[in-house]
Amino acid sequence: MIIDCHGHYTTAPKQLEEWRKRQIAELEDSKHAPTKGNLGISDDEIRASLEGAQLKLQRERGTDLTIFSPRAMGMSHHVGNETTSRHWSEHCNEMIHRVCALYPEKFVGVCQLPQSPGVPPANCIPELERCVKEFGFIGCNLNPDPSGGYWKEPPLTDKWWYPLYEKMVELEVPAMVHVSASCNPNFHGTGAHYINGDTTAFMQFITADLFKDFPTLKFVIPHGGGAVPYHWGRYRGLAQDMKRPPLAELVMNNVFFDTCVYHQPGIDLLLKVIPADNVLFASEMVGAVKGVDPETGFNYDDTKRYIDAIDWVSRADKEKIFQGNVKKVYPRFKPTGAKR
Amino acid sequence: MIIDCHGHYTTAPKQLEEWRKRQIAELEDSKHAPTKGNLGISDDEIRASLEGAQLKLQRERGTDLTIFSPRAMGMSHHVGNETTSRHWSEHCNEMIHRVCALYPEKFVGVCQLPQSPGVPPANCIPELERCVKEFGFIGCNLNPDPSGGYWKEPPLTDKWWYPLYEKMVELEVPAMVHVSASCNPNFHGTGAHYINGDTTAFMQFITADLFKDFPTLKFVIPHGGGAVPYHWGRYRGLAQDMKRPPLAELVMNNVFFDTCVYHQPGIDLLLKVIPADNVLFASEMVGAVKGVDPETGFNYDDTKRYIDAIDWVSRADKEKIFQGNVKKVYPRFKPTGAKR
Repeated sequence: MIIDCHGHYTTAPKQLEEWRKRQIAELEDSKHAPTKGNLGISDDEIRASLEGAQLKLQRERGTDLTIFSPRAMGMSHHVGNETTSRHWSEHCNEMIHRVCALYPEKFVGVCQLPQSPGVPPANCIPELERCVKEFGFIGCNLNPDPSGGYWKEPPLTDKWWYPLYEKMVELEVPAMVHVSASCNPNFHGTGAHYINGDTTAFMQFITADLFKDFPTLKFVIPHGGGAVPYHWGRYRGLAQDMKRPPLAELVMNNVFFDTCVYHQPGIDLLLKVIPADNVLFASEMVGAVKGVDPETGFNYDDTKRYIDAIDWVSRADKEKIFQGNVKKVYPRFKPTGAKR
Repeated sequence: MIIDCHGHYTTAPKQLEEWRKRQIAELEDSKHAPTKGNLGISDDEIRASLEGAQLKLQRERGTDLTIFSPRAMGMSHHVGNETTSRHWSEHCNEMIHRVCALYPEKFVGVCQLPQSPGVPPANCIPELERCVKEFGFIGCNLNPDPSGGYWKEPPLTDKWWYPLYEKMVELEVPAMVHVSASCNPNFHGTGAHYINGDTTAFMQFITADLFKDFPTLKFVIPHGGGAVPYHWGRYRGLAQDMKRPPLAELVMNNVFFDTCVYHQPGIDLLLKVIPADNVLFASEMVGAVKGVDPETGFNYDDTKRYIDAIDWVSRADKEKIFQGNVKKVYPRFKPTGAKR
């Protein structure tokens, strides 16, 4: 079984985006009381949005199941206030729930959190609990920068985040550390802000004792860990200079990297440097890079192909990467569908 | 001849740092008129600061010459105002000039710019001209984020920076894109802010037509190009999705990566992915990572060793990386010393 741990619902029916546009427009009107309302999306429209996209690509590429969450760029926690994010997150998560109910063999849910700049992460707990307990979701996406490129919240190792972590530990759900859209003109979203967010989070984890406080807390750092595996010697050396424990002991029971690296040499490096126990297969399709690589004739984001091409990773290690580690990182992942 | 294109004077005599501390303390006193004053550092003190450090490491590692600039973390352009940065940059650059005069075979100068948040980069031109014309410096370090981790200036492709670029082109000097200290608690300096700065700059260059406007403008992106080579497929794919020209045409006549990547697999990836024409040897010693890698028994930052260990890069390509490209990227580099 091949599990893709990182997919977003980037192809949702247009009513979702239209609802969001109305919500944002209404923020301008101070007399308007925000309401959640309805999306008016049918099951058939959901099916149509997936059949020619994620489901087609799963079939073509030979992946069985995607751990699926709302569009990352769409989270845009910097927009509006806490209520804005709450209504929007609820809609987005309900869409994921409907997808998973329609295709229980193909998708398992991960939720967007209703974060908002300056608002305590503890306020996200009700939505996290709803998604896990009512919808059967198995994780959440945590945005380390709800400001959208200005990095105004405390680091992820700060006690500011602890109440949310306590709940994550209690529920046995990991978080993927995933920024959203950048409203800072310096940072291209998928080309800079995403990758910087990954690198930043990892370095935060090195410098603090978060995992002493939460030994079972788990994070997935997407996009192949940002710059981290490429600079693995730098991170080992920085930890050493700071008299921190070796990385294996310091973070590697708690931090995992996905395989969203879109060329063979990058995947080769990732699998050479990071232990197979800490790598989870992912492609983030349909996502940041949609084209076909003229050097290979295949989609850049067809990451399974790169892993398949490697003959120096053992079958046992590939099994961990493709499915075994999922069961470790996402303890709530259960084989409920027919194929599982 | 082996040229290290990225070294900082991190071991300067203590009077330099003491002067800086006084300068910062005096910022508190609104009645104090800022003055440049003197450092009171002797030539012997400069010699002593280098003999057991950079010069010793050059000898041990077999590098002949370092392109040398003030300490990057020390630039801290976010401190004080334009006058603060001007006085401080002048002192730092004069120290580099003295180093180069004492050891003309071992060091060639690159200057710190007196940037200050919100101040037009054009105001750096007099100090750039002084360093190039009077001191014989061959490049500058350009900080894309003088705010120190809050990223408040326009992107490097904005016309805000153009007057400085015009002068760089006229003088035939490149810039190394190098951030300084982070005062944003989210970003560890050498572990996150540095690498993010590199990644961010590269993505800015992809999205704009800067090099159509300045076909001969050249940038070195340090620290192995941040996350870029590891995600080379992502960057090729993003450019393609955005209908931009291929990277070779779009940026590779103007953008170069150094080899400050502190482990063998990272250097392997860099040299596999990035054409030898775009890679310049560097170690950034004495710098961010000072320790010995227990996996190799050698310093993490002894990057020459990683390149030497590679047998699949041709002698001609290694010659480009170790010295040939320097002459292309830094046209003012001239063999003036005895060994040159």
